[in-house]
Amino acid sequence: MILNIDVQLAYQVTQRTDMLLQIEAADLDDQTPLESQLNMSGVTEVARVAADDGIGERVWISGDGVFRCDYAARVAIDRSETDLSALHGTAPHLLPAEAVRYLMPSRYCPSDEFQTFVAAEFGGLEGGARITAIRDWINSAFSYVPGVSNAQTTALDSFVQRQGICRDFAHVMVTLARASAIPARFASVYAPGVNPPDFHAVAEVFLEGNWHLVDATGMAAANEIARIGVGADAANVAFLNVFGQAGFVSQSVSIRTE
Amino acid sequence: MILNIDVQLAYQVTQRTDMLLQIEAADLDDQTPLESQLNMSGVTEVARVAADDGIGERVWISGDGVFRCDYAARVAIDRSETDLSALHGTAPHLLPAEAVRYLMPSRYCPSDEFQTFVAAEFGGLEGGARITAIRDWINSAFSYVPGVSNAQTTALDSFVQRQGICRDFAHVMVTLARASAIPARFASVYAPGVNPPDFHAVAEVFLEGNWHLVDATGMAAANEIARIGVGADAANVAFLNVFGQAGFVSQSVSIRTE
Amino acid sequence: MILNIDVQLAYQVTQRTDMLLQIEAADLDDQTPLESQLNMSGVTEVARVAADDGIGERVWISGDGVFRCDYAARVAIDRSETDLSALHGTAPHLLPAEAVRYLMPSRYCPSDEFQTFVAAEFGGLEGGARITAIRDWINSAFSYVPGVSNAQTTALDSFVQRQGICRDFAHVMVTLARASAIPARFASVYAPGVNPPDFHAVAEVFLEGNWHLVDATGMAAANEIARIGVGADAANVAFLNVFGQAGFVSQSVSIRTE
Amino acid sequence: MILNIDVQLAYQVTQRTDMLLQIEAADLDDQTPLESQLNMSGVTEVARVAADDGIGERVWISGDGVFRCDYAARVAIDRSETDLSALHGTAPHLLPAEAVRYLMPSRYCPSDEFQTFVAAEFGGLEGGARITAIRDWINSAFSYVPGVSNAQTTALDSFVQRQGICRDFAHVMVTLARASAIPARFASVYAPGVNPPDFHAVAEVFLEGNWHLVDATGMAAANEIARIGVGADAANVAFLNVFGQAGFVSQSVSIRTE
Repeated sequence: MILNIDVQLAYQVTQRTDMLLQIEAADLDDQTPLESQLNMSGVTEVARVAADDGIGERVWISGDGVFRCDYAARVAIDRSETDLSALHGTAPHLLPAEAVRYLMPSRYCPSDEFQTFVAAEFGGLEGGARITAIRDWINSAFSYVPGVSNAQTTALDSFVQRQGICRDFAHVMVTLARASAIPARFASVYAPGVNPPDFHAVAEVFLEGNWHLVDATGMAAANEIARIGVGADAANVAFLNVFGQAGFVSQSVSIRTE
Repeated sequence: MILNIDVQLAYQVTQRTDMLLQIEAADLDDQTPLESQLNMSGVTEVARVAADDGIGERVWISGDGVFRCDYAARVAIDRSETDLSALHGTAPHLLPAEAVRYLMPSRYCPSDEFQTFVAAEFGGLEGGARITAIRDWINSAFSYVPGVSNAQTTALDSFVQRQGICRDFAHVMVTLARASAIPARFASVYAPGVNPPDFHAVAEVFLEGNWHLVDATGMAAANEIARIGVGADAANVAFLNVFGQAGFVSQSVSIRTE
Repeated sequence: MILNIDVQLAYQVTQRTDMLLQIEAADLDDQTPLESQLNMSGVTEVARVAADDGIGERVWISGDGVFRCDYAARVAIDRSETDLSALHGTAPHLLPAEAVRYLMPSRYCPSDEFQTFVAAEFGGLEGGARITAIRDWINSAFSYVPGVSNAQTTALDSFVQRQGICRDFAHVMVTLARASAIPARFASVYAPGVNPPDFHAVAEVFLEGNWHLVDATGMAAANEIARIGVGADAANVAFLNVFGQAGFVSQSVSIRTE
Repeated sequence: MILNIDVQLAYQVTQRTDMLLQIEAADLDDQTPLESQLNMSGVTEVARVAADDGIGERVWISGDGVFRCDYAARVAIDRSETDLSALHGTAPHLLPAEAVRYLMPSRYCPSDEFQTFVAAEFGGLEGGARITAIRDWINSAFSYVPGVSNAQTTALDSFVQRQGICRDFAHVMVTLARASAIPARFASVYAPGVNPPDFHAVAEVFLEGNWHLVDATGMAAANEIARIGVGADAANVAFLNVFGQAGFVSQSVSIRTE
């Protein structure tokens, strides 16, 4: 499947400000940017650095006043949908070093608080069977409601309120997986079925030696997702990280499939 | 300086449980384990994996019942004390990729909430001058009080309560550095001046291209600290991470200098 | 039923400190102190004031050094156990003014966060049927585990962790009742079946024009409970409120039935 | 001074919903409604109950669809501005029973967390001198910034973020007063100098036997404030409490002085 991605961002800063932009689809084994253009005005690209786990890049930009970033890309997705419920968990001592840190709690995913809950609710299941049970439980118990969460909202808040947006669904998914001793990270992605169109977020879990995409909102299938970047949670893969104050001007995201 | 480290841990689990142990001083340019012995009973060492940022190792252990871990080491520290206040900050776009993620908030260090505070209190200072001003402010405004904090306590709680232990001082230090756009991570360490003797924790900040140790408690100087491991915060460098329930039996830490 | 209550407290302050003591069983229609003695040493009783909702009294005491409070009482309980599930809720506009404020969230009972949860889990039930369903759910989903909660623990924390002590069970009960638009308050009480013997806490809910005791721990039946005082939550009915710092020396609570 | 108050609210509910409206200036010794009209459409007034501490009234309303509430009043304020800094604190044991509960923490005012901070920052001051020092500190350290706080924001969050709106300033003021063992409550009010015009909120503190208004935003002087109601914090004096879901349609508040 090929995704056509079009993003326009416009923001405003009132003094020279450093920012970190992370909106380009990553070049990976299972997804290939065929064409890709990032055009910016009112802002300077200063440097590029590899993003977390070597997936994608972050762009340091520096601006003063209104600036715009336009990103257009065609990305080929070559990833089959896997039946997660059939996958085994990886025994802890066989986890690669870089997966181990995704067992730990993070800013928005305080998984240390949920061990009793997962043992009680999903105790009879392990590996992929537990992951799909968690995903299905979130999907049925939670409502997708824009506007009820914000930049401070954690998985703990969302778990109590039973509502939120993709970011919140992904945080709860990641949290309950980690509480189950299954490594889980947060992925910022593009996907065609998101309504209204916007940046999307899903979880990734580590089963049978590989990372697997899981979308608890049910909006996106694994074979139609283009990853931008991954990290412990939303704190690590914001599309725009501002080291100062920035004001919103406009933003649009459009994803079409060929 | 040479540190003689002696640690005895005894814990208890009621069923076979996977645990991650991280108590050995790391072998690094500025610290060298001359001798090192880790003896365990009632528990099996299953695997070793590199810890975060390649500093130190984590040991997967598996136990059932009471188990003991005894660690004895002689570690040579070869690190001069630096006058941090004279160091410049590294411009964001010159930060190495692996330092960038230490600008982001984490489980116990919600630095995103403190940008207004640091701008108001330390706005006129930058780089090492800001770091030492933050360190000195924490040192004078906070009291070292065992027992008031626990495994849920964040830097936000400690900032309000103005008290805590080394872990809490380090979390506040890390948080205010990140809110100042200076990369900061949490280091689990051994140091001789800690009273009562225990595992110790300090911050590390990135200035002029290198990581520098900062102890806001004032208990340990940089030239007498042996690092065990580093991470985003205490969640990433627990000396014992239990994937299940473990009960405390006994614990002692002794550090002598030669 | 007659309860024989014996309480000994010993605490220590390092300078003259004002404290509020609230440990005496209240004199009410459905419970009568037959005998009651409060003896104190090392501390002066300075004044007595009516406690919240006119139930029981608070005693202002002032001490310096170690002090002891011994309370002994025989209290006749004359209260029948009611089948709550058969009671109707009181329509909001018929609530007495003093019940209305117990619809609102409080320090440990952020009921505003739980409206979606109660609608989803208990939406088909109202009044007493909903209250008993909530009580039974808490009783089966939560474990009574001393030591996991502390003075900062809210109903939100307990809801996530699924464990705690009587105070935590009562907070969750109060929170979910208020989120259901049923007035609920927190009662500090004595009851014989508490193990180990200690101060106990239960919820009170307002149904069919009266307050009814509900113990989600299942430890105490309504007809064997002696109320000390009531309030929005544990913040309002601490047995000892210290305006300064006090250290624990010893404490014992014994309740026998005649 | 005479205030002319004009309020128009329009909200929308999608099914029959009970709501509690509290927008009328209270009739008190120091403020007298000369004229007052509350007109509503699309909603029925069902009952009136006295509000907390007998100050003002709450109106139970019931609606289905869009509803409007128009409130117009002329209120004579007869209250002199007091120099709070000269007032003594009331000794705890002389506090009236109804003031004692305003020493306790509440939903948005976790004063139990701030005892160390107030002792360190304001330890040399007591009574009115401490209150004015706290007020002046908040006024200088905090910025009035709409949009950064929401219905979950507590005084702890605001204390860290150093910004917010009148509600947040009042919560911090109340919290630091209570942490100082000075009773403090939250007052929902009308005042002419609020910009943009809106409902306003201030603190009330108990000094020398009376409640005194304190506005840490500096927007309103005590002699030009009309109180609507008081309570432990904003949870108790919302202008509209919805027992279900309501959507915002429009709202305007205008205050003129004669």
